[in-house]
Amino acid sequence: MTTVNRRWLLARRPEGLPDAGCFALDTQPVPAPGPGQILVRARFLSVDPYMRGRMSRTAGYAPGVGLGEVMRGGGVGEVVASNHPAWAPGDIAESMAFGWQEYAVLSPDRPGTDGVHRVDPALAPIESALSWLGMPGMTAYFGLLDVGRPRPGDTVVVSAASGAVGQLVGQIARLSGCRAVAIAGSARKLDWCREIGFDAGIDHRTADLRAALKETCPDGVDVFFDNTSGPIHDAVMRRLSIGARVVLCGRVALAARHEAVETGERHLGRLIATRASLTGFLVYDWWHRRDEALARLAAWHRAGQLKYREDVLDGIARMPEAFLRLLTGENFGKQLVRVV
Amino acid sequence: MTTVNRRWLLARRPEGLPDAGCFALDTQPVPAPGPGQILVRARFLSVDPYMRGRMSRTAGYAPGVGLGEVMRGGGVGEVVASNHPAWAPGDIAESMAFGWQEYAVLSPDRPGTDGVHRVDPALAPIESALSWLGMPGMTAYFGLLDVGRPRPGDTVVVSAASGAVGQLVGQIARLSGCRAVAIAGSARKLDWCREIGFDAGIDHRTADLRAALKETCPDGVDVFFDNTSGPIHDAVMRRLSIGARVVLCGRVALAARHEAVETGERHLGRLIATRASLTGFLVYDWWHRRDEALARLAAWHRAGQLKYREDVLDGIARMPEAFLRLLTGENFGKQLVRVV
Repeated sequence: MTTVNRRWLLARRPEGLPDAGCFALDTQPVPAPGPGQILVRARFLSVDPYMRGRMSRTAGYAPGVGLGEVMRGGGVGEVVASNHPAWAPGDIAESMAFGWQEYAVLSPDRPGTDGVHRVDPALAPIESALSWLGMPGMTAYFGLLDVGRPRPGDTVVVSAASGAVGQLVGQIARLSGCRAVAIAGSARKLDWCREIGFDAGIDHRTADLRAALKETCPDGVDVFFDNTSGPIHDAVMRRLSIGARVVLCGRVALAARHEAVETGERHLGRLIATRASLTGFLVYDWWHRRDEALARLAAWHRAGQLKYREDVLDGIARMPEAFLRLLTGENFGKQLVRVV
Repeated sequence: MTTVNRRWLLARRPEGLPDAGCFALDTQPVPAPGPGQILVRARFLSVDPYMRGRMSRTAGYAPGVGLGEVMRGGGVGEVVASNHPAWAPGDIAESMAFGWQEYAVLSPDRPGTDGVHRVDPALAPIESALSWLGMPGMTAYFGLLDVGRPRPGDTVVVSAASGAVGQLVGQIARLSGCRAVAIAGSARKLDWCREIGFDAGIDHRTADLRAALKETCPDGVDVFFDNTSGPIHDAVMRRLSIGARVVLCGRVALAARHEAVETGERHLGRLIATRASLTGFLVYDWWHRRDEALARLAAWHRAGQLKYREDVLDGIARMPEAFLRLLTGENFGKQLVRVV
């Protein structure tokens, strides 16, 4: 075991896309766990779009990371020291409270979304706890099923469809008897989407979005799982069917913008005409049903009904790079960083 | 019985607010009812914000009125001739299919929203069938209770609060155990809102809306019944509580605009942060539950728990004037025209 802990701190708040200067790599002694705590050595760290919000003073629903503080984020790793009776060295732990660092002191008794979850390495590769068998999996599961309320025969459109959440939304939509239409940013990504079961795909970088949506969704869009906002949002909003449900999951298309406030077309008249709803969604509200989601996702996976693609960079030094790839759509699948 | 039928035709499609030249008064012989039809002489005609949409080529959810055709609209009047076994001269009939005219041929067997409803003059003044005991009453009832889903203790904000729908929404909110906050365009209107039970009021023509909402809704807005869109929408969206429900009922604040598309701030990030929903709503979807709504509204009214204010102009010649008053907020209460 090394004696130093490398950590990425927030050095500067970004305007628009973050750059390398927004982060500072800091070296500290490995911390010691206090009473009831465990020390976990990171094996994989996650980067997720929500982190862009946390780099601001406030993410709307959560305080931002302070300047000079460790960047927030989920991680999975091996327990190397334990002052908690239920945890022993060698156990695998996952937590949203890990942070962008090699070693984290975690409190297994902390409730809720900052809690610590035990990972069974026999069930799936441990990094799955950061992707389909973790928070992104829950996001797809509850966002589609509980907020989007798909019915068999519905047309479900998913933006960022090859991403951490989108690829699952499409497959769960198919398992629910729906047609699934992918919107993604390259032919390769769309090939993958078709491979995992999406019925149609639209490349938002090359297609005439409105024409392509008309062609792929001739009867309108019943559920729109929106990970991007921006021009994709506008195009899909024009195709809503009567009673459509729009799930607002994320706005990654806006990561590069400098304005604090998003302006553009408002679709209120369209929402009235279609009696559609637009619902904001945070997966944290479903944390009490975490076991349900993960059990069903695991069952689908065991049955070969759920495929998943990850995009892994090596080395904690590459965390900012991985994050920027994610925000610009250069990743292909769930973006992770392998630490050791 | 006179032998002529004066009718208001759509003469020109407006850009922004309609003016007198958009309408033409036409005189025709009184029509004769066909088999199964009745001839009804108008006593009261309604003007409603939705008619602005019908003056365009399409209202989004319904085709527009054709140039040279009679303006669409609801009316209530007396049957003067009947070829229908269930209807006799002297009966009072209400229909959304009346049109801006003195005499209408109606088909009582037509189903749905273009149907004909019998009005009991002993229950309430017959013009109530165009206001609290008719379509605006149903709009308030289903929009608030079914779309807004108020819970006791909720803060319910209503725009155009002294209008045909708004005044009912506030009172039903109070009957549901909620706090009701009125937004209206004059001190007189707000005095009336307080008189009928609203807990607080904001004059959108004079107040600093954001500051006034902060003061009147210190714990946020749980239900926003939005009749206006525009700057009022923006201000209330900034005060949504966690899990808030926004009922999109109308957009009368946009009646003067020339642009086909509404642009402005998009509140998608705010909807995510608050896990709020924004739901478009058309009362026609609740037509099968019309009896339920009207029975409850009538019961509240009998119990003295529902007050209602109408704003009546005299003479079919004043239909365009009445309509423009409505679109500019000069009316005070439900706008009607008394025909005879």
